[in-house]
Amino acid sequence: MKTVIGIDLGGTNVRVAKITEEGEVLQELQSPSYGLEGPEKVVPNIISLVKQIDGYKDCVGIGIGVPGPVDTVNKVMKLSSNLKGFTDYPMAKNLEEALGLPTFLDNDANCAGLAEALIGAGKNYPIVYYVTISTGIGGAMIVNGKVVSGKSGYAGETGNLIVDPYREPFNNLNPGAVESEASGRAMTRKGKAIFGDHIESAKDVFDLYQSGNEEAIKLVDQMTTDLAIMFSQVAHIVDPNIFVLGGGVMKAKEIWMPMMVEKFKSFVHPGMRDVIFTQAECREPGILGAAMLPISNGL
Amino acid sequence: MKTVIGIDLGGTNVRVAKITEEGEVLQELQSPSYGLEGPEKVVPNIISLVKQIDGYKDCVGIGIGVPGPVDTVNKVMKLSSNLKGFTDYPMAKNLEEALGLPTFLDNDANCAGLAEALIGAGKNYPIVYYVTISTGIGGAMIVNGKVVSGKSGYAGETGNLIVDPYREPFNNLNPGAVESEASGRAMTRKGKAIFGDHIESAKDVFDLYQSGNEEAIKLVDQMTTDLAIMFSQVAHIVDPNIFVLGGGVMKAKEIWMPMMVEKFKSFVHPGMRDVIFTQAECREPGILGAAMLPISNGL
Repeated sequence: MKTVIGIDLGGTNVRVAKITEEGEVLQELQSPSYGLEGPEKVVPNIISLVKQIDGYKDCVGIGIGVPGPVDTVNKVMKLSSNLKGFTDYPMAKNLEEALGLPTFLDNDANCAGLAEALIGAGKNYPIVYYVTISTGIGGAMIVNGKVVSGKSGYAGETGNLIVDPYREPFNNLNPGAVESEASGRAMTRKGKAIFGDHIESAKDVFDLYQSGNEEAIKLVDQMTTDLAIMFSQVAHIVDPNIFVLGGGVMKAKEIWMPMMVEKFKSFVHPGMRDVIFTQAECREPGILGAAMLPISNGL
Repeated sequence: MKTVIGIDLGGTNVRVAKITEEGEVLQELQSPSYGLEGPEKVVPNIISLVKQIDGYKDCVGIGIGVPGPVDTVNKVMKLSSNLKGFTDYPMAKNLEEALGLPTFLDNDANCAGLAEALIGAGKNYPIVYYVTISTGIGGAMIVNGKVVSGKSGYAGETGNLIVDPYREPFNNLNPGAVESEASGRAMTRKGKAIFGDHIESAKDVFDLYQSGNEEAIKLVDQMTTDLAIMFSQVAHIVDPNIFVLGGGVMKAKEIWMPMMVEKFKSFVHPGMRDVIFTQAECREPGILGAAMLPISNGL
């Protein structure tokens, strides 16, 4: 059984694990990532963690997931707001040199999508489109077991898709970007504006929905329309076999997902209506998907 | 040099050609397709044309492009409004049996995109997204030299993408579908509504634009916004290296394309602004792309 090293690098923590090609975690280490102290601090820390993994040299390769867009051809991080000093940083090359194992790099959403496509809810489907609906909205496209990350790593940046060009722009996103309209943060913002500052999360809006509050019903109704338009855009452009949905907003999926899927069907050609919508399955998709990078690249 | 048989089946005509793997047409035959007379008439006619090609048996395979969505896994036509009686028709299997050559099937827009990706304007780019802006709007996604046609052949059905959910629906498309707003037919419809029935084509609207007519300037301005939103949707979902644009509306590209590309840049993240927009190059993309199907499938 092949084993791989998966690394999940975040702004706060970094996790390193030895994982089998079937996704079983054999050993896992965690540490602060020192994300604001620059590569001089972050990278030696990662290298030291990998060296603490039993028999790390017997692994076929290393996969690392990082926040922000990645140039997967040159294996370089493009930029990351959560990590300081990593613009154009040759992460894979430096780990390869220090650890002697072929190293692959991708962003965290692509890693999560890859995990779902290879060992999660999308297993055995040729085209998997993964969408995470959380504080923000993002995603990944996996075709025949490989991430298609695009020219500059922006494939799957679904949060910036325009679902209504007449709405106000937020946070450097497009006017009517779906992340500004239907993410967890968007639902919180809209809830606060209507119900006041005691609304602390999307959950509070969903609770009001369930109690029959008419304003909350309108908000959820609009959210499902906006998400349905976003999914219809992906469907017409890629026609995936399956949509795998992750992220915290999925906790309320019984409330909004059936309504969203019905609206989606009204926005696509009849022959497209049987696409599967399902919930993500992997418990730790970030690190599992990072570990799948060497496998999906043929190692 | 490998040779292939390419077949371009339309509602009115069918063309059959012997083509080299580099896209040189060695011999070409054309005939009415008898598209309304059913497969019993259409298919024997195609078989007879192929048998008239010199040395057709020495070709490595056959590729056929057809109108309407195709199930490329089962090599079956799904439906076609221009051809009668072809719903779920096993076109590739029947040609294979009659002609003894491995046969591949795809829809005409995917074939055109494949031609551009392999031997046209998108040559050597990993991810090519082809969009044709003609009477309607459609397209194709080609990743590493292979068409990604999707679960049911709907990848690239960009004409139904919603660019403004508040507009009126036309022709069974979505409200504000880009084909209803920015295609040649759409520009003609809008031109007629404003200027009267002497407007016969999008060209008439573009001519008014060039003469400085303010209403025409508004129409073209809206068209470029709508197309820019459509291309931004593709970019966020797929992040292609290059957009290859074909179709009759490209004849007026000097008028609208620079404006459209500028607006596109305002609708995407800064790192996405350097995607290439270019004009399709192949003179006969339909039949060339059909011929490329066996090549792109490894023959």
